[in-house]
Amino acid sequence: MTTVGILGGGQLARMLALAGAPLGLRFKVMDTSAEACAGQFAPMVVGDYRDDAALAEFASSVDVATFDFENVPAESAQWLAERFPVFPSPRALAVAQDRLAEKTLFRELGIPVPDFAPIDTREDLDAALARVGVPCILKTRRLGYDGKGQFRIRSLADADAAWAALGEQAATVGLILEGFVAFDRELSVVAVRGRDGEFRTWPLTENWHVDGVLSASLAPAVADDVLTATAFDYARALAEALDYVGVFALELFCRDGELLANELAPRVHNSGHWSIEGSETSQFQNHLRAVLGLPLGDTRMVGHACMLNWIGAMPDAGPVLAEPGGHWHDYGKSPREGRKVGHATLRADGVADLGHALERVGRALGREAQVAPVIARLG
Amino acid sequence: MTTVGILGGGQLARMLALAGAPLGLRFKVMDTSAEACAGQFAPMVVGDYRDDAALAEFASSVDVATFDFENVPAESAQWLAERFPVFPSPRALAVAQDRLAEKTLFRELGIPVPDFAPIDTREDLDAALARVGVPCILKTRRLGYDGKGQFRIRSLADADAAWAALGEQAATVGLILEGFVAFDRELSVVAVRGRDGEFRTWPLTENWHVDGVLSASLAPAVADDVLTATAFDYARALAEALDYVGVFALELFCRDGELLANELAPRVHNSGHWSIEGSETSQFQNHLRAVLGLPLGDTRMVGHACMLNWIGAMPDAGPVLAEPGGHWHDYGKSPREGRKVGHATLRADGVADLGHALERVGRALGREAQVAPVIARLG
Repeated sequence: MTTVGILGGGQLARMLALAGAPLGLRFKVMDTSAEACAGQFAPMVVGDYRDDAALAEFASSVDVATFDFENVPAESAQWLAERFPVFPSPRALAVAQDRLAEKTLFRELGIPVPDFAPIDTREDLDAALARVGVPCILKTRRLGYDGKGQFRIRSLADADAAWAALGEQAATVGLILEGFVAFDRELSVVAVRGRDGEFRTWPLTENWHVDGVLSASLAPAVADDVLTATAFDYARALAEALDYVGVFALELFCRDGELLANELAPRVHNSGHWSIEGSETSQFQNHLRAVLGLPLGDTRMVGHACMLNWIGAMPDAGPVLAEPGGHWHDYGKSPREGRKVGHATLRADGVADLGHALERVGRALGREAQVAPVIARLG
Repeated sequence: MTTVGILGGGQLARMLALAGAPLGLRFKVMDTSAEACAGQFAPMVVGDYRDDAALAEFASSVDVATFDFENVPAESAQWLAERFPVFPSPRALAVAQDRLAEKTLFRELGIPVPDFAPIDTREDLDAALARVGVPCILKTRRLGYDGKGQFRIRSLADADAAWAALGEQAATVGLILEGFVAFDRELSVVAVRGRDGEFRTWPLTENWHVDGVLSASLAPAVADDVLTATAFDYARALAEALDYVGVFALELFCRDGELLANELAPRVHNSGHWSIEGSETSQFQNHLRAVLGLPLGDTRMVGHACMLNWIGAMPDAGPVLAEPGGHWHDYGKSPREGRKVGHATLRADGVADLGHALERVGRALGREAQVAPVIARLG
C-alpha cells in the first residue's frame, strides 16, 4: 500500500486523489486550512508548512510526496525530500517559484521571453524602466499566484505608485520587472515526464483569462504544426534541464505567430483540467504515474474539449449536465469572490458540435461573454 | 451541500464516491466491516444493518441513500425511506432480493425465464424436479451472491444432497428450484432510469464467468439489432414496472438466439465497470444523477472496451498501464481467495486493436485463458 502525500489541499489535490484511487493509492494531504476541499476525500493534516511538528505528522505515513501548491517553503520541501522521494524535486520547485530564476533558465535554453530585469532598489526600477520600456509589470519574484503581487506600469509616472505598492517586498521575496507583451493569444503546453525521462505532452491548449484568472481553455488549440512543435520543444527542453518528474504546464504568449514563454507551473494545471474527460489519460493520473515510476498513460485526445472555469460561485449545473458531452466539476468549496470553485468540460467529437454546445451553455447560464472568444476561435 | 448515504462500503460504493465527487457531493458509507474499501475515500459508519443505533448514526447527516449491496434487510431500507429518499425504492429492492418475486415479475412482464418453482418442503423439491427436470439448480430465494447458496442438481440422485445442503434454509430465506439453461452466451443490459422516468441503456454487454464469478465483459456485445432491442425492451419493462430509479443490470442468457432473463441486480453492476472509461458517462455518475434527480448523462460508448476482473489478488499493473487504452482499478482491498480485488479496462477505437491489446495483456500476465473467449468473440 502506497500513500502519496500532497502539500496543499485544494482542488488540484482533490482531483489527484480521485484520479489516484483507481491505482490503489492512498492519500494524505497537508493544508493550512481545515476547510481545504481535498479533505473531503482524503485524510488531512492541518498546519503551517513551516511548522516542524505538523510537517512531521504529515511525513509520518507518507511514501512519496508531491504538490498541489508550488509555493511551499523550499526548506520544507527539502526536509521532506531527505526522508522520501519528492516530485517535482525541490530544485525544480525552487526554479519555478522564482520568476527571475525561471526566466533566466528560459533564456539559457533559448526559449524566447519578454524582456525582464531584477529589481532590488528604487534605482534599479528606474534603470530597468528605461531599458524595458512601458508598458511593463512589476512583480514579486516569489509567491505570486493568480495575478496577486503584481503592479502594471502604464507610464513612467506610475513608477512611484508601483514602488509604493511592492517596494518593501524587494528585500524579502524580491522583485522583477517584466516587459508587457501585447499578445494575440495565450497558449499552454501541459506535459508529463516520468522518472525514467519519458516525456509526453497533451495537445496544445489555448487559454483565455479574465482579470488574471483563467476563464476558458480549448484543446486542441487551433494552431499549425510548426507552432505546436516549437511549443512542445520548449516544454521538453525545460523538463530535461530541470530533470523534472511529474506534470507541469508551460504558459506561452503568442504574438504575430511567435511564442514567448510566460511561466512554468510545476504541477497539474488548470489549463489541463479538460484532460479528465477529453484525453485517454488525465493529467492527474499521469502525474501520479510519473511520481510513482509507473508507465505513463496515453495523452491523446478523444475529440475536442473546452473547459469553463467557475469563479466565485457555482452556476446551475443543469445546462451542462443536459449536454451529451457535458461534465461537471464542483470542488466542494464555499463561494468566495475570485475563488476557483469548479469547472465544466464540454467534449464533442467535432468542432462544430463543440461550438453549438458552448452556445447553448453560454445562453442558458447567461455567460455569453465567457464562451464567446472560444466560439469565435472555433469559427 | 448534499450528502449521499451508501449502504455497503465495497468497491461499488468506492467507485460511486469517486464518480460523485465532481458533482460536489459528499458521501457517507455504512458497512459491517471497518476494512471496507470505500472507507478509504469516504467517512464510514461501521455496524450491522439491523443495529438501530448504527443505522441512526448513518442516517444523521444523510440527504438521500442508495446501495452498494442489495441484501440490506428490507426493514432497514424501509426505516431509512421513512426519513429521506432512498433509491432504488425498498419495493424494487425487495423484488430483486427475492428470486421468486423477481422471476414471477419477469414472467408477468412477458420476459422469458428458465422454468422455476418455489420449494418449501422436501416434497416440493421432488415434485418440482419431476416438472422442471435435470439438470437444475436449487437456490436460496434471498441473500444469494456470486454463486453462494446454490446447489447444482445433475440427476435425481442429487436431490438428497441438495436438500441436506440447503433444506434448512427453506423455512428462513426460502428456496427456489430453477431449470438449468444450457446457454451459448451470457449478456447484460446495464440501464439507468431517472426520477422523471427517463430511461437510458449502455450498449449491450457480453459477459464470461468462471466459477460463478464474472471474469470478463465486452462492450458493445457482438449482437444483432433485434437481439439488442429485445434485451433493451425487457430492461425498460422491468424498470417501469418497478418505478425503478438509478442504475440496474439485467443479466440474460442467450440460447439459440433467444434471450432468457437470469437476474436483476438493483445497483451499479460489475458488467458496467467498463463505462468509467468507455462511455461518455459512467454507470456510477449516472446512478448518482438519477438518484438526485439531475439530468442523465450520455451513455454512448467511446470505441470498444473489455473489462477483466481481478479475483483473489491483484496482478502486476505494468502491462495494463503500458497499453495506450489501458486503465487500472485497484480497489484497495487485501487479497483473499475468490474476492473481487480490482479490474482493468482496455479501450480501443476498433475491434482489432482491442483484440491485440487483450493478447498482449493476457500473455504478459499469464492470463491467456481469461482473455481467450473475448478474443475469440472479436474474431
